[in-house]
Amino acid sequence: MIAMLRNRIHGNLRHLSSKARPIHEVLCPDMVGQRVTVNGWVKSTRVQKVNTFIDLDDGLKCQRLQVVADTAKVPPGVSYHSALCVQGVLKRSDHPAQEFELDAEQIDVVTGTRTDYPLQPRKRYDDEYPRTFPTFRAKLNDFACLLRVRSSLLKAVHEFFHNEHFVHVSTPTLTSSDCEGAGEVFMVLPNSVDTVKAMKKESVETDEEAYFDQKVYLTVSGQLHLEAVCNGLSRVYTTSQAFRAELGKSRRHLSEFTMVEAEVAFANDLESILAMQERLVKSSIHDVLTNNLEDVQTYLMLNSVKQKGKKKGLQKDTDFLYSVLEKPFVTMTYQEAMDALQKANNNFKSNPGCSLGKEHELYLVEDFCNNTPVFVVDWPVNTKPFYARQKQCGQLVDAADLLFPDVGELSGGSLREHRVDVLEQAILKSGANLNNLQWYLDMRSCGAAPMGGFGVGFDRLVQFILKVNNIRDAVPFSRVPHSCRL
Amino acid sequence: MIAMLRNRIHGNLRHLSSKARPIHEVLCPDMVGQRVTVNGWVKSTRVQKVNTFIDLDDGLKCQRLQVVADTAKVPPGVSYHSALCVQGVLKRSDHPAQEFELDAEQIDVVTGTRTDYPLQPRKRYDDEYPRTFPTFRAKLNDFACLLRVRSSLLKAVHEFFHNEHFVHVSTPTLTSSDCEGAGEVFMVLPNSVDTVKAMKKESVETDEEAYFDQKVYLTVSGQLHLEAVCNGLSRVYTTSQAFRAELGKSRRHLSEFTMVEAEVAFANDLESILAMQERLVKSSIHDVLTNNLEDVQTYLMLNSVKQKGKKKGLQKDTDFLYSVLEKPFVTMTYQEAMDALQKANNNFKSNPGCSLGKEHELYLVEDFCNNTPVFVVDWPVNTKPFYARQKQCGQLVDAADLLFPDVGELSGGSLREHRVDVLEQAILKSGANLNNLQWYLDMRSCGAAPMGGFGVGFDRLVQFILKVNNIRDAVPFSRVPHSCRL
Repeated sequence: MIAMLRNRIHGNLRHLSSKARPIHEVLCPDMVGQRVTVNGWVKSTRVQKVNTFIDLDDGLKCQRLQVVADTAKVPPGVSYHSALCVQGVLKRSDHPAQEFELDAEQIDVVTGTRTDYPLQPRKRYDDEYPRTFPTFRAKLNDFACLLRVRSSLLKAVHEFFHNEHFVHVSTPTLTSSDCEGAGEVFMVLPNSVDTVKAMKKESVETDEEAYFDQKVYLTVSGQLHLEAVCNGLSRVYTTSQAFRAELGKSRRHLSEFTMVEAEVAFANDLESILAMQERLVKSSIHDVLTNNLEDVQTYLMLNSVKQKGKKKGLQKDTDFLYSVLEKPFVTMTYQEAMDALQKANNNFKSNPGCSLGKEHELYLVEDFCNNTPVFVVDWPVNTKPFYARQKQCGQLVDAADLLFPDVGELSGGSLREHRVDVLEQAILKSGANLNNLQWYLDMRSCGAAPMGGFGVGFDRLVQFILKVNNIRDAVPFSRVPHSCRL
Repeated sequence: MIAMLRNRIHGNLRHLSSKARPIHEVLCPDMVGQRVTVNGWVKSTRVQKVNTFIDLDDGLKCQRLQVVADTAKVPPGVSYHSALCVQGVLKRSDHPAQEFELDAEQIDVVTGTRTDYPLQPRKRYDDEYPRTFPTFRAKLNDFACLLRVRSSLLKAVHEFFHNEHFVHVSTPTLTSSDCEGAGEVFMVLPNSVDTVKAMKKESVETDEEAYFDQKVYLTVSGQLHLEAVCNGLSRVYTTSQAFRAELGKSRRHLSEFTMVEAEVAFANDLESILAMQERLVKSSIHDVLTNNLEDVQTYLMLNSVKQKGKKKGLQKDTDFLYSVLEKPFVTMTYQEAMDALQKANNNFKSNPGCSLGKEHELYLVEDFCNNTPVFVVDWPVNTKPFYARQKQCGQLVDAADLLFPDVGELSGGSLREHRVDVLEQAILKSGANLNNLQWYLDMRSCGAAPMGGFGVGFDRLVQFILKVNNIRDAVPFSRVPHSCRL
C-alpha cells in the first residue's frame, strides 16, 4: 500500500514554494552579480528609447526594486499595478535614488490590469474614494505601509505580554452577558428560519433565544471573561474584536474594533496598572519604530502630502513618537482636570460626575500637558462602571483614563472591586441585572484574588502613531453605521 | 501648573507592581536563602502536628511551590483555592518530590473560599460538571495547563508567520458577504429597537438591514478578505474567530472557533501550500513541546486519569507528538483515498463527488497511514467551493484536506482560481450570488497575482496536541448549540 503514497520531498522546504525571492532579501550587497527571480506589482514605469525602468513592489516590506529592461523586449501589459515575474541580474545602480537595480533578462506579465483600473499613479484622491475599493486598497503605498505597521504593532503587543509572563486567552465574541452598555450591543441569531425552527425549545419564548436558549450578543469588551480566567492564571490578556452599535459616526469610533485587554490578579495599587499600560504603549511604539521605521516615515510623508498639498508637505518627522517614548507619562486627578478646564474657560461647567468630552480630553493632553500622555485618576464613583474599586472615601474610584494627543482616550483601566458587599451595592445602583452577575459575585467570594486591568484601543494606537485622520482608515476593513463593505 | 502634576516614579518599572515574584522565578538555586514574597492559590494542604505543608500555585507556569509553615501560625481560611500572600525564605527541600520549599514567616489570606465552593480537591468529575463553572475553571490544574498551551501555540503560530515574512491582518468579524455556507451563518443586528428605528433609511426594507444598509453576518472564514489584502502584500495571515450556526453538536464542532488562515500571492503549485502547512503545524507543535512540555505532560496525565481511572492511567507520553514531527506528512489523491476505503470495506460506496465522512477521515489517517498526517489532494470539482483552482483536466481541483489522527480534518487549502472565465462559470454553477462577488472577479482581472492559501482549525490543533476528547474543552469559553455561558 505504501507504494500508492507519494512522500513529499523534504529538506529546505522554505525554497520549495517558488524560485522567487522577496525583494527586500534581494536588495543587499551579497546579491550583486547574482541571477534572481522576483515577483511584484508595477508601481511606476519610465519608458526611454533604449531602456525602460520599472518600479517593482512585492508588498512584504517598504523597499522596492528598480528593474531596468531593454525597451524593445518589454512585453505588452506592463502597466500600473499589473503583476510581474522578473528574472535578471542584480547590479549596483549609478543613480543616487537607489543602491541596486535589476538588469532584466526575462519579464513575464502574470496578471495584467484592465484599462478601467480605478486607481491611477500619482493621482491624489479624497479620503472616501479609496475606501470604496477594498479589493485594490492594499496596493496603495500608504495603506500597505499602514497594514505592515499594524502587524508589527500587534507583534510588539504579544511580545510585551509574553515577556511579562501573561497568558493569551481568546475571549469569546459571542456572549450572553449584557451587563455593559446594553443599549449599544448587537444581537446575534441564525440567518436561516429553518435553523431557528429546528433549534427552538418549547421553554424558549422568542426566535432570538432559539439557538443558544437565550439571547446572545456581540461582546463590547473581554474584561469580565478575562477576570474569570485571571482567577487561576494570575496574568492574562487578549487581543480581540469588540463591537458597539453606536448611533453616530465619528472619526474616532468604529462598530467593530480591536481591543488589547489585560487583567492581573493580586493587584492592590492602581500605580502598577498605570505603569504596565505605560510600558506596553512605549515598548510597542518603540518596537514599531525599530522594525518598521521606513513604513512609519513613508506613511507620515504620504499622509502629510495628502493633507497639505505637495508643496508644503513631505513631513516624515517621527519626533512626536520619540518624544512620547522619552517623557514619563503624567498623572493628574479628575478634580485637577476639572480645575484646569475651568481655568482655561470660564464658561466650562464642571458637572460633578460627568465624563470628559472629546474636546476636554484634547485640551488636557495637548495644551495643558504639552502633548505628554496623561493618566486622569480618582474619578467620581458615578462616572465609572460598577466593577471599578471604590477608594476609602467611598466617593471616588481607583480608575484611570489614559489620554493621548490627537486621539484622546487611548486606554481605560481600574482596580476591580473585590469586596462583595460593596460590589453588590454598586451593581444594584448601576441598574445592571444582579442575576446575570451572580457568577461575578460568587467569584469574588470564592478565592478570587483582587484584580486590576485595562483595555487599550488598538486601532486608536495605530491612528496616533501614523496620524491617521479618520479611524476608518486605520483598519483593513472598516465597519461603521451605514457601511460594511465586503 | 506643573506643580499640580505628579510625575510618576520611573526606573525599573517591572517591580513597581508588587513585591511579590512569580513562583517559577523563585524556584531556582540562586534564590536559596533569600527572603521572598509570593502570591498564589492553595492547591492542597497537609496538616501535621508541627508543620503544615501548603501547595501554592500562581497559574503562570506549571510549577508549584511547597510552603512549609508552623501549624500553630497558619491563619484560618487557608483552604482549597483560597488566595494567599506568603513571605518566607527559600530553602532546599529534603523531600525528593521537590527541589525547593518556602519556609513561611508570614501567611496572609487574601481571599478565602466559601464552604460551598463547587470544586473539591482530588475529586473526579464528569466532563460536563466543570464546564458549568467558567468562573473557577481556570483554577483546575488540567484547564490551566490547556490555557497555557493554547497561548504558547498561538505565539508559535505568530512567530512562524513572522519568520516567513507574513503580514498579520485583522480580518473582520462582521461581513456583508454571504457567499459561503449561507445556510449556516449568524445574522447581526442592533439589540435596541430604538437604534434600529433611528438608523433605518427609507431605501431599506427590513430591520435587519437598518444599521449597515444591508444584511450583515458573522464571518465563516477570513479567506476572501485575506485575498483582498494579499493583493498588494503578497503574504498575509490572520488568527481570527469564525462562526457557524450548525444544527447538530459534535465533539469536533463549535459555533465560535479560532481559525489560522494564510494566503500567498504568486502561488503556482499546490505543493508549496502543502509544504507551508506542514512547516506551520510542525514548528508550532515543536515550539509548544520546547516551551511548555510540562504543561503538555501534566494535561495528558490528568486527562488519561480521567478517562481510564487512576490505576491504569498516568499516561504522559508525548511520543505521538514527536512522531508527527519526525515523519514527513503523506500525500494521497482523493481517488487513492476512495480505493483504500473501498478495499477496507466492501460495503463502502464511493459516491463520486462526496466529501469524506469523519469515520473515513480517521480510517485513512489512523489505519491506512498509520497515524501519519495525510494530505488528500485532487478533489473532484463539485466537492470544493468555487474558488478552488481547476486542474488542466477540468474534472479535479488543486485543493487539499490535511487529516490528523483523532481530529480528522485539521486544515483545508487550495490554489485559488485566477482565470476570470473559469471562475465566473464556477460561481454560477455553485449558486452563489454573482453580484456579491463582482469585486472578486474584478480583482482577478486587475493585476491580482494567482493566489493559494489554507485555513487551520486552531482549536482542533489544541485538541490533537492534548488529546482533548471534546473540542468544547479545548477553548476557554465554548459556544455550541443550546449553550453560551457568560
